[in-house]
Amino acid sequence: MWTYEKKLQYPVKIKRPNPALAKFIISQYGGPHGEIGASLRYLSQRTSMPNRQVAGILNDIGTEELSHLEMVQTIVHQLTKGMTIEQIKEAGMEAYFVDHTAGVFPQFASGMPFTAATFSVSGDAIADLQEDLAAEQKARLTYDNILRLADDPDVIDPIRFLRAREIVHFQRFGEGLRIIQDELDKKNFYAINPSFD
Amino acid sequence: MWTYEKKLQYPVKIKRPNPALAKFIISQYGGPHGEIGASLRYLSQRTSMPNRQVAGILNDIGTEELSHLEMVQTIVHQLTKGMTIEQIKEAGMEAYFVDHTAGVFPQFASGMPFTAATFSVSGDAIADLQEDLAAEQKARLTYDNILRLADDPDVIDPIRFLRAREIVHFQRFGEGLRIIQDELDKKNFYAINPSFD
Amino acid sequence: MWTYEKKLQYPVKIKRPNPALAKFIISQYGGPHGEIGASLRYLSQRTSMPNRQVAGILNDIGTEELSHLEMVQTIVHQLTKGMTIEQIKEAGMEAYFVDHTAGVFPQFASGMPFTAATFSVSGDAIADLQEDLAAEQKARLTYDNILRLADDPDVIDPIRFLRAREIVHFQRFGEGLRIIQDELDKKNFYAINPSFD
Amino acid sequence: MWTYEKKLQYPVKIKRPNPALAKFIISQYGGPHGEIGASLRYLSQRTSMPNRQVAGILNDIGTEELSHLEMVQTIVHQLTKGMTIEQIKEAGMEAYFVDHTAGVFPQFASGMPFTAATFSVSGDAIADLQEDLAAEQKARLTYDNILRLADDPDVIDPIRFLRAREIVHFQRFGEGLRIIQDELDKKNFYAINPSFD
Amino acid sequence: MWTYEKKLQYPVKIKRPNPALAKFIISQYGGPHGEIGASLRYLSQRTSMPNRQVAGILNDIGTEELSHLEMVQTIVHQLTKGMTIEQIKEAGMEAYFVDHTAGVFPQFASGMPFTAATFSVSGDAIADLQEDLAAEQKARLTYDNILRLADDPDVIDPIRFLRAREIVHFQRFGEGLRIIQDELDKKNFYAINPSFD
Amino acid sequence: MWTYEKKLQYPVKIKRPNPALAKFIISQYGGPHGEIGASLRYLSQRTSMPNRQVAGILNDIGTEELSHLEMVQTIVHQLTKGMTIEQIKEAGMEAYFVDHTAGVFPQFASGMPFTAATFSVSGDAIADLQEDLAAEQKARLTYDNILRLADDPDVIDPIRFLRAREIVHFQRFGEGLRIIQDELDKKNFYAINPSFD
Repeated sequence: MWTYEKKLQYPVKIKRPNPALAKFIISQYGGPHGEIGASLRYLSQRTSMPNRQVAGILNDIGTEELSHLEMVQTIVHQLTKGMTIEQIKEAGMEAYFVDHTAGVFPQFASGMPFTAATFSVSGDAIADLQEDLAAEQKARLTYDNILRLADDPDVIDPIRFLRAREIVHFQRFGEGLRIIQDELDKKNFYAINPSFD
Repeated sequence: MWTYEKKLQYPVKIKRPNPALAKFIISQYGGPHGEIGASLRYLSQRTSMPNRQVAGILNDIGTEELSHLEMVQTIVHQLTKGMTIEQIKEAGMEAYFVDHTAGVFPQFASGMPFTAATFSVSGDAIADLQEDLAAEQKARLTYDNILRLADDPDVIDPIRFLRAREIVHFQRFGEGLRIIQDELDKKNFYAINPSFD
Repeated sequence: MWTYEKKLQYPVKIKRPNPALAKFIISQYGGPHGEIGASLRYLSQRTSMPNRQVAGILNDIGTEELSHLEMVQTIVHQLTKGMTIEQIKEAGMEAYFVDHTAGVFPQFASGMPFTAATFSVSGDAIADLQEDLAAEQKARLTYDNILRLADDPDVIDPIRFLRAREIVHFQRFGEGLRIIQDELDKKNFYAINPSFD
Repeated sequence: MWTYEKKLQYPVKIKRPNPALAKFIISQYGGPHGEIGASLRYLSQRTSMPNRQVAGILNDIGTEELSHLEMVQTIVHQLTKGMTIEQIKEAGMEAYFVDHTAGVFPQFASGMPFTAATFSVSGDAIADLQEDLAAEQKARLTYDNILRLADDPDVIDPIRFLRAREIVHFQRFGEGLRIIQDELDKKNFYAINPSFD
Repeated sequence: MWTYEKKLQYPVKIKRPNPALAKFIISQYGGPHGEIGASLRYLSQRTSMPNRQVAGILNDIGTEELSHLEMVQTIVHQLTKGMTIEQIKEAGMEAYFVDHTAGVFPQFASGMPFTAATFSVSGDAIADLQEDLAAEQKARLTYDNILRLADDPDVIDPIRFLRAREIVHFQRFGEGLRIIQDELDKKNFYAINPSFD
Repeated sequence: MWTYEKKLQYPVKIKRPNPALAKFIISQYGGPHGEIGASLRYLSQRTSMPNRQVAGILNDIGTEELSHLEMVQTIVHQLTKGMTIEQIKEAGMEAYFVDHTAGVFPQFASGMPFTAATFSVSGDAIADLQEDLAAEQKARLTYDNILRLADDPDVIDPIRFLRAREIVHFQRFGEGLRIIQDELDKKNFYAINPSFD
């Protein structure tokens, strides 16, 4: 179970509403490489992970991603709070506003609602960890692109923090994969399946 | 941010694998009325909720639903762990097994991956709270139906706990709605919009 | 069965094409809180509603929503009819135009095709009516937001009519819920299920 | 606008619950070739149809499909009303039951919620009418398959009626296409676009 | 099986990046009437087509559509290659860029990922061929609309080629339908079903 | 462009219809780890891949996956061709049959139509290659599970071939990743972006 502590993992203090930035940063909330998908991916995979040490890595990172989705949510909220109708029109944000006002809905930047079709829980230790390595690179790339597009230092700072964490996660999943591979019987190299083999 | 405590909110101790039960209980993990949707709904809505007391209710319940999704995950995991190929075939679970083995993937019982299209974040205090009241009734109904279909007391016990919690949440959201309505200016009864009006 | 009468429930007479308005008003045609979803929700729920008086309310409102989807369709059509390529480009409507020209397709404002994942038919009288109360508030909120964004009085007038009807529907569903609750045996308060209990 | 008349276009009187039949007949409610899609397709296409006579055909058939979706809904309802938990289990209908009880939800037989991605509104007279001819053949084929699978004469009778109507609609859309083609300027044969050319 | 030949079916040589054009042309890659859907539709339908000559038409055109999706991909790539952040912002392409950078992802112009819900494989010769006739008209219409919106002759030229091919395909599917109808037993006119009747 | 050669990459000769097997093998046609997704993923990624040697690997493997989707299609076709209504009912395949008869539709085993949301084209060389490594492991895992469930040697033989090819692809993508990493400037380790950096 989880308990909530009323602070962000890393501070977010944005001074100026900027819905044009919020429009694409929301992709890291509910988009194809976003923090909701990351968290659900790892927290879903942990139960069938046969090695308990690696299951612990999944649980730790899945829990940290919950704190990251809160940070992205806060960035989007601070960028859209108090925005005016004129700012919405200038930012071309009417499509979002009409259904969500200034709420933070988990969606792709394009408006597609978050879908779990964007990730896999295969029940296979190697396939799941390769999926996780890829997920961290895709999240890293999305933060790269946000940094290319953003110009407000109040936004850039927490995005840099989030990007740095993805790289750490990538390395931890790499270690997890090594742990699994060291355990494998040679003949069973690819066929590992915790519940059946 | 959230921290993880290594225990379930309520114990789940299922002794016999039963994939036939797992096949439909998974709906309360990633289905249209499930715990993932509940948690994301409330945690997403809280940032734009203008009344801080009601935002606190959303945060509390959204956090508790995280613990519920862990319980449902555990139920599904214990029902499928160690199942044999024969049990999979008897349960008609091949479609699930082929992609997920004995992993726990967030999906509808039918196999549709979880989608955030199943809920709303409207950015409007009254619309969001009415959505939440409905969500709790729909979750309650789904647990009713699980109880109608399940016959293993080890499953029935935690499902009854989860069902009871939905009823408590329903009442807390009812109080939240009363708080919002008491604050409303008469003329603004329906038009409340935290960031714009 | 239904018969068509060649008039709108309330007149729509828009003089100037304005694709920029059409782009987001279409959300009330096929979007998450739109009239297609409303109509299908109520017309689908009516068959399993155990109380015939409440089933009648669902049928009446579901039928009226058919007339509303026709009104929203007409608004979108009049706003896009005869628009020029220049107007499309100015309005940023190329993504819609390329697939639908000036046709009226049931979609979210973002371009996501209408999906029934946006509503529930639970087969439970209380859960369905709470869903309906929420639906009316979400539709009301979407009309609020359209009114915040629109500036053409020819558009504002029928939108105000539609918004007013949602508030009436909200009250009628409230009465429906009271009828169901008055019928309930105390012990069965939450477990009502028309076909099984 | 539409008005409701409390009778079915063709009577449905099924005496025995049979959820195994309901499970796949529901495809003609909300599935890829179903009556909801048919109705929304034609009623959406009519506004941009340049020829008023053909727009009238779309409106007539779109309205009749509303009555067909009511018939399919009634078939599913009568096949599932009063079914027992044992009948649900025998029919393998748990996945549906857990979320919808004995309600009638617009979905594919597989459980995918109805999606408007299954049809097109192209804003082009010829493309739309070809889409409609295809739609009628696909609905006809689905009724063929239902007839291959069903053995209850109370079900077969209204399905035969619905199938016969699709064939009539196919012919009427064929006439509609001829009307459009007769109107076309030779050079404009494929490029017809009601609002732009 | 297929073998790749390193040339395009028709040359694409675009000199100036223009992401504003790429944004909607991508619909013919992964959109509702696009080349990926066309290719998968025909290549999927061919196995159950009872007449081998018509199956050959499906295979030929399905294979040609593979070459068309490569052409559309190349158009989008050349329009976005080397674009600057300023050009992305001017074109309003941030939502695409954040997840895909300058990669070519199969999606609707609106950002909805390609879905096979946009086409049918009915296993019925007549229904499939009517679907294919409609598909060619819808693709033709989408190219019409691209031509209405595009102003770069380097883009217009290959789009005209692609549009011309759709018209040829339409005629070949018309011949295919005639072949099937000539084979039909009168009484079986609509009920043809290769594996069952 | 591609040309078709009328033979399979590896022979498929199944003697007995067995729709129960077809029901889940179809996941490797249009499911989350299937051959359609694999082919579209690699063929989409190749245009933005900066290193031409690695782009060649993507093109080769993407082309080979086209031949694999043809093999899976053939397996499903041979398993369902000539099946009787009784066999359909025994296999619980009514939901598929009603919409697709014995046609081969690209879908998940559960019935969800293929969706490109299951893969990424990130426009980033490292993120794309990690995605591809994961994709090969997930495909390998799905073939593992098919082998666990299947008992017909005529099916097992080509599935083993397909599984072996995924392992070869995994290794080639590993080499591709090494090529990219060798090219990287140290400081740019994670930020590679072909069009912008």
